[in-house]
Amino acid sequence: MSSETPDTQRRGPYRTGVRRREQIIGAATAVFAEYGYAGGSVRTIADRIGVSPASLLQHFGSKEGLLMAVLEDWDRHTVETRLTDVTGLDYFRRLPDVMAANVSNRGLLELFITMAAEASSPTHPAHAFIQRRYTDNLATLAGHLQHAVDAGDVAVLSSAEIGIEVRLVTAILDGIGLQWLLDPSTDVVTSTATYVNRTITGWRSPR
Amino acid sequence: MSSETPDTQRRGPYRTGVRRREQIIGAATAVFAEYGYAGGSVRTIADRIGVSPASLLQHFGSKEGLLMAVLEDWDRHTVETRLTDVTGLDYFRRLPDVMAANVSNRGLLELFITMAAEASSPTHPAHAFIQRRYTDNLATLAGHLQHAVDAGDVAVLSSAEIGIEVRLVTAILDGIGLQWLLDPSTDVVTSTATYVNRTITGWRSPR
Repeated sequence: MSSETPDTQRRGPYRTGVRRREQIIGAATAVFAEYGYAGGSVRTIADRIGVSPASLLQHFGSKEGLLMAVLEDWDRHTVETRLTDVTGLDYFRRLPDVMAANVSNRGLLELFITMAAEASSPTHPAHAFIQRRYTDNLATLAGHLQHAVDAGDVAVLSSAEIGIEVRLVTAILDGIGLQWLLDPSTDVVTSTATYVNRTITGWRSPR
Repeated sequence: MSSETPDTQRRGPYRTGVRRREQIIGAATAVFAEYGYAGGSVRTIADRIGVSPASLLQHFGSKEGLLMAVLEDWDRHTVETRLTDVTGLDYFRRLPDVMAANVSNRGLLELFITMAAEASSPTHPAHAFIQRRYTDNLATLAGHLQHAVDAGDVAVLSSAEIGIEVRLVTAILDGIGLQWLLDPSTDVVTSTATYVNRTITGWRSPR
């Protein structure tokens, strides 16, 4: 198509290639977020940026290759919002801020929740990626809660109890995110803060 | 196709029609649960039961008509598991059983969570249906919590606080359901019971 003429490429083929890749990933993120992976066609993505499907696939090899590029890009974005400066209970206290950041990028949140639901099928190409994301996140949360137990900041919790607690925290973040997508008047920060505060109080009370 | 010959129809056209409709709805539920609505094609659904796409659409008019039939069928199924015999805090105490029932039908849970994520887009044909489901469920939960407040079973909560509480309960049910789809070793009953018990304790403590 005209936007990929040799003329454009002569102005800096590498930079043009990088820019075009970013453009494709942006369009694919939006289309997969809206239609899911199965429903988002390469043609729809290509149409959004005015290239041919064949030209788009030159950059990524296949639709599945394009999905992997979208997920890696999403990973890079979430790394930026990852909390590396806090540990233990402070990690949980920052979760309302994390949710505020998540809803500032509707496209990425929509992509992640749609993909998580769709990729629960074991044959989905993002299945392993999504499972690993959940395993990693649960392990991170469990590490921080164990840290709080070890520091005596909360009552003693068994590792089975910690396992349940981190699944509940994760459920709140996903579930409140989903409700916000369906109804943007959902107060994600107050909801998350209410959960975190009551939960920390519960963790502190000896049972 | 052969299963829709006049010969079959002579044996009882109405009953055959009803059975065929149920068969189509079952196949469509499975396909939409796996691929989403956008990604689940009429051809894939028709292939699963060995009819032509044209013959399938005769029953429902359009793909959107088929989706509506699937959602109404899902509604009928959930009515059966709806808790009509309990009010107030007892309603919340029964939620672990509701989750146990939900995970006994993976297909319907997968359909609902995939559809909720995908239908967050305002142009999705199930958008209004899903929004109404959430509004109705939140109102039901809020009614039971208000009942508990009025009965003096919990401390006084403002209506804004009740609004937050019922969003959190809903988030737990959706989020734990999603984690179970991704990892069937997730203990949905213990997770939900842990949440409900701590939350009721929290509601009872004056702040």
